Amino acid sequence: MSVLPADAPFAAKVEFPEGAGRILLVCEHASNAFPAPWGDLGLTVDQQDAHIAWDPGALGLARALAQRLGAGLVHAPVSRLIYDLNRAPDQAAAMASRSEVFDIPGNHELNPAARVARTKAVYLTFHDALHAEVCHMLAQGTPPVLITIHSFTPVYHGQPRMTEFGVIHDADDRLARAIVDTAQDLTGLRVALNDPYSAADGVTHTLRLHATPYGLVNAMLEVRNDLLATPGQVQEMAALLAPVLAQSVEKVCA
Amino acid sequence: MSVLPADAPFAAKVEFPEGAGRILLVCEHASNAFPAPWGDLGLTVDQQDAHIAWDPGALGLARALAQRLGAGLVHAPVSRLIYDLNRAPDQAAAMASRSEVFDIPGNHELNPAARVARTKAVYLTFHDALHAEVCHMLAQGTPPVLITIHSFTPVYHGQPRMTEFGVIHDADDRLARAIVDTAQDLTGLRVALNDPYSAADGVTHTLRLHATPYGLVNAMLEVRNDLLATPGQVQEMAALLAPVLAQSVEKVCA
Repeated sequence: MSVLPADAPFAAKVEFPEGAGRILLVCEHASNAFPAPWGDLGLTVDQQDAHIAWDPGALGLARALAQRLGAGLVHAPVSRLIYDLNRAPDQAAAMASRSEVFDIPGNHELNPAARVARTKAVYLTFHDALHAEVCHMLAQGTPPVLITIHSFTPVYHGQPRMTEFGVIHDADDRLARAIVDTAQDLTGLRVALNDPYSAADGVTHTLRLHATPYGLVNAMLEVRNDLLATPGQVQEMAALLAPVLAQSVEKVCA
Repeated sequence: MSVLPADAPFAAKVEFPEGAGRILLVCEHASNAFPAPWGDLGLTVDQQDAHIAWDPGALGLARALAQRLGAGLVHAPVSRLIYDLNRAPDQAAAMASRSEVFDIPGNHELNPAARVARTKAVYLTFHDALHAEVCHMLAQGTPPVLITIHSFTPVYHGQPRMTEFGVIHDADDRLARAIVDTAQDLTGLRVALNDPYSAADGVTHTLRLHATPYGLVNAMLEVRNDLLATPGQVQEMAALLAPVLAQSVEKVCA
C-alpha cells in the first residue's frame, strides 16, 4: 500500500499483514540508523545505541503486537536525532542539539537549508506514507485506530521512573482511558495515564497530525525499556499487551 | 517547491511568486475540470459550469490576492464533484452523489476501490503537495498563515443569501475575528462571521488538516459569487480584500 518506491532511501517502513484489521501501529522512534548524508552526528557508538537515538525495544514490541493483533505498522527508517518524527519541523526537538544530558554535535547551528533538507527527506516522506495508509483505510470504509508505540528510559536526568506502562492521550482520551483500565484489570504492570509524558510535553504530534483531523480513535503507548531488554521480554510484553489493546479497542469502537 | 513532477496528471497547482511572504492561500474548489478517467460524471455542460462543480471566481480572486499580498497559492486541478478536497475520504460529501438540488450520476454507488482510487489520485496528491509547502516554510522558520479562498452561490435551495463576505474559523478564531473587524472598518461589504457556513457544517477540513496540528494562524473566506462574475469584479474584490487580509495578519501575528 505504500506510495513510495521501495528504493527511496529514507522511505517509511510499512508492514501490512494479509487481511490486516483496523488497528494501525506507528513507531516513530524505531531506528537507530545514522545513514549518509548525515552520518553519526559526532556521537559515540554507545550514544548511538542509547535511548537518545531511538526507543530501544519499541520496534520489536510493535512488530510482535502487529502480528498478534493483525495490525498494520509504519515505522521510522532513521534515528530520531537525525529527525524526530514525532515533532513538527519548527520545533527545536525535531533536530535536537541536546538530548537529556548528551550533546549532539552534528545538530549544532543547523541553518534553514539543512533543516528543510532533513524535513523533506525524513519527516515528509514518513508522514506522507502514513497519511496514505490512513486515507486508504478511510476511503475503504474502515477508519483506522491509530496507536503509537514508544519506550522510555528507566532513569532520566538521574531520577528513577516507577511507571512501567504509560498511556498518553491528546484531545480524545477514550482509548487511552480504556487501555489504562483494561491493563489494570489484566496485567500486573504499574500503569499510569499521561506518564512519563503528556500532551503538554509536545509528544502527541503524530496523533494531532493523523488522528485528530479525521476523528480517529487513538492513543500513545510508552513501555519502560528495561522491560524490553531481550527478545524474550519483548514477546512477553506483547503477549501481555495484545489482549489489553484488543479489548480496549473493542470497548471504544463498539 | 512542489515535490510532484510537473506532469503528474492530477498534481495540485502550486504558484509561488519570487520572494513570497508568509501568507499561503489555498483554493480547494478552484477548478471545474472533468478529466479522464472520470469524465463529466453524467452532468450537463451547464451543471459543469455551476457552483456545484466549483467555486466560480474563487481562483481568480485567490490569484489576484496572491499577487497583491506576495503570497503562495495552492489550488485544485479538478472539479470538487470528482473529489471535494475540503472533505475527508470517509465523508459522503468527498464524492457527493447529490449536490444542492442536483443529482450526480457518476458518483452513484461508488465502490470502495473507486473511492480509494480517487482519494489517492486527487486528495492525497493535493494535500501532500500542500503539506510539503507548509513544512518547507516551517523548517525555514517562517510558519505560514493559512487562508482558504471560497465563493458561494447567492441563492441556495431557493433562499437568497444576504451575506457578501463570510469569514469562518475552526478551533483558532483569532484571524477570522480580525478579518471581520477589519473588513467592517475598511469595506462596505455585508460581512459575517461563520456564515453562510461554519465549522459545524464540516467545511474546515483543510484548516484542521494543515493549520491546527502546527498551530498556524488560519481562516476560511467565502465571497458571494455574484460579486465575482467578471474579471473586473474579481480585481475590485481583490483590491478591497488585500489590505483587509494584510492588516488582519499583521494584528494577529504582531
